[in-house]
Amino acid sequence: MSSVTVLRSRSKTVEIGADRPFCVIGERINPTGRKKFAADLRAGDLGTVTHDAVAQVEAGADMLDVNAGIPLVDEAELLASMLKTVQAAVDAPICIDSSVIEALEAGLSVYEGRALVNSVTAEDDRLSEILPLVARHDAAVIGLANDETGIPETPEKRLECARKIVATAADFGIARDDVVIDPLAMTVGADPQAVRTTLQTISLIRDELGVNMCLGASNVSFGLPDRHVLNAAFLPMAMAAGLTSAIMSTASVVVDAVRASDLLLGHDEWGANWIAAHRARQATLAAQGASVS
Amino acid sequence: MSSVTVLRSRSKTVEIGADRPFCVIGERINPTGRKKFAADLRAGDLGTVTHDAVAQVEAGADMLDVNAGIPLVDEAELLASMLKTVQAAVDAPICIDSSVIEALEAGLSVYEGRALVNSVTAEDDRLSEILPLVARHDAAVIGLANDETGIPETPEKRLECARKIVATAADFGIARDDVVIDPLAMTVGADPQAVRTTLQTISLIRDELGVNMCLGASNVSFGLPDRHVLNAAFLPMAMAAGLTSAIMSTASVVVDAVRASDLLLGHDEWGANWIAAHRARQATLAAQGASVS
Repeated sequence: MSSVTVLRSRSKTVEIGADRPFCVIGERINPTGRKKFAADLRAGDLGTVTHDAVAQVEAGADMLDVNAGIPLVDEAELLASMLKTVQAAVDAPICIDSSVIEALEAGLSVYEGRALVNSVTAEDDRLSEILPLVARHDAAVIGLANDETGIPETPEKRLECARKIVATAADFGIARDDVVIDPLAMTVGADPQAVRTTLQTISLIRDELGVNMCLGASNVSFGLPDRHVLNAAFLPMAMAAGLTSAIMSTASVVVDAVRASDLLLGHDEWGANWIAAHRARQATLAAQGASVS
Repeated sequence: MSSVTVLRSRSKTVEIGADRPFCVIGERINPTGRKKFAADLRAGDLGTVTHDAVAQVEAGADMLDVNAGIPLVDEAELLASMLKTVQAAVDAPICIDSSVIEALEAGLSVYEGRALVNSVTAEDDRLSEILPLVARHDAAVIGLANDETGIPETPEKRLECARKIVATAADFGIARDDVVIDPLAMTVGADPQAVRTTLQTISLIRDELGVNMCLGASNVSFGLPDRHVLNAAFLPMAMAAGLTSAIMSTASVVVDAVRASDLLLGHDEWGANWIAAHRARQATLAAQGASVS
């Protein structure tokens, strides 16, 4: 009963699934908390968008999240421009990230391929606004496991939200394969039980619904030092519990932890990808050594 | 129903438990696969023992494994000498590692404190040989989840072995708190399902027996490149499943993954240890920077 979610750019297809290598979605093209980037975008300078798109794909991202949320900016127009820029730079499929319905609409209109829409929640008005749009564009959608009452504290209530999203999506003609649930990762700096709750939610959703899951992995380490090391320890746990994709940092320590986990969990048989990546690193080091000497 | 295993050196106490930070047992003082070290030991040179004891404790080991298994050497005599050397160098409690009953006996006789004996299996003759020795010395014991038929392929059969060890230990007067089960980690390079089997075994033993567990974590990456990165991804998974200690590398990437997992799993509330370790690293870097400039 495990799902496969198919996303496409103009030229590349990515499949998210429990029997596939983990899907790494680069988190970087997002002005939240990036003052300089936000100022550039406001001024119409999209150079950093191109740079970050290329850098994240080179660092191992399978897909890219693109978010244009800046206060007092026409988010629909900016998101469309950013999507065009990313599509011109790389061939990774895109996760179109906005809470504004007009921005999602504009984004889907300029997107060439099959996008992942980020996101809907289990709130009735969000479901009835966003799901028809997702269905009309034949996209897939991330559903956050929260509703009108906020973020549920228990895994069971998050499962209820997930179940509602999957059922309502079906009513709108969206297949279970195209609903990717976000089990919600909160910062462990504010709640020592936050990660355990997320891990239990992941296991429960895997066992009960069998749908793909995606979360904003960097949230767990918010406010703490050495965040990459924390993120690199969190992802193996979440993958072992059943997480199949994440919007995440593409810092090498984090991506390496994901690819190591693919091998450990049997998604890289006999370590073919792992060994190839090792040889590529060795070749790069040798080339750097040669150019230094 | 979760267990607490108390180990002691002359001056230091370590507790292994599901509500405690993970117990890191340094694997290095073992001549298996270390030709130079084996040759030194054979020649009576214990300098590397002292060096490795100090280095592993500095790198974050809570306990040290000590193994003297060299072909055609009097293992009892060598193990006793090595234990004296380690006890003179550091105050970490010790895991006395041998398959030879006379060596365990000699080791326990020179050990000052409460040792962890590594190991017994679920084989009848091993149980009846080793458990009385463990009981007589008031030690704790690692029980490998295999028996006369070899290493069970299924988590359920490993659980059966574990159950037998716990029950037989009780017959010899050894408390459940003092039995630490090794759920067995095999290399994923030989079997893509090896890690999943180990993780399921850990969960099962935690849920059914509630005893502490310890495994040789580096086994999972045997024969593969970039082993530390694989080990650093494996341990968070195993800890989330319920593993409470490991005989492991103290390479910084691996120890950092364990301490990150302690924080993520709620065993380092508000990140007090994590933040203190971060500040210590910053201070070291600053001191190095100052000495360079």
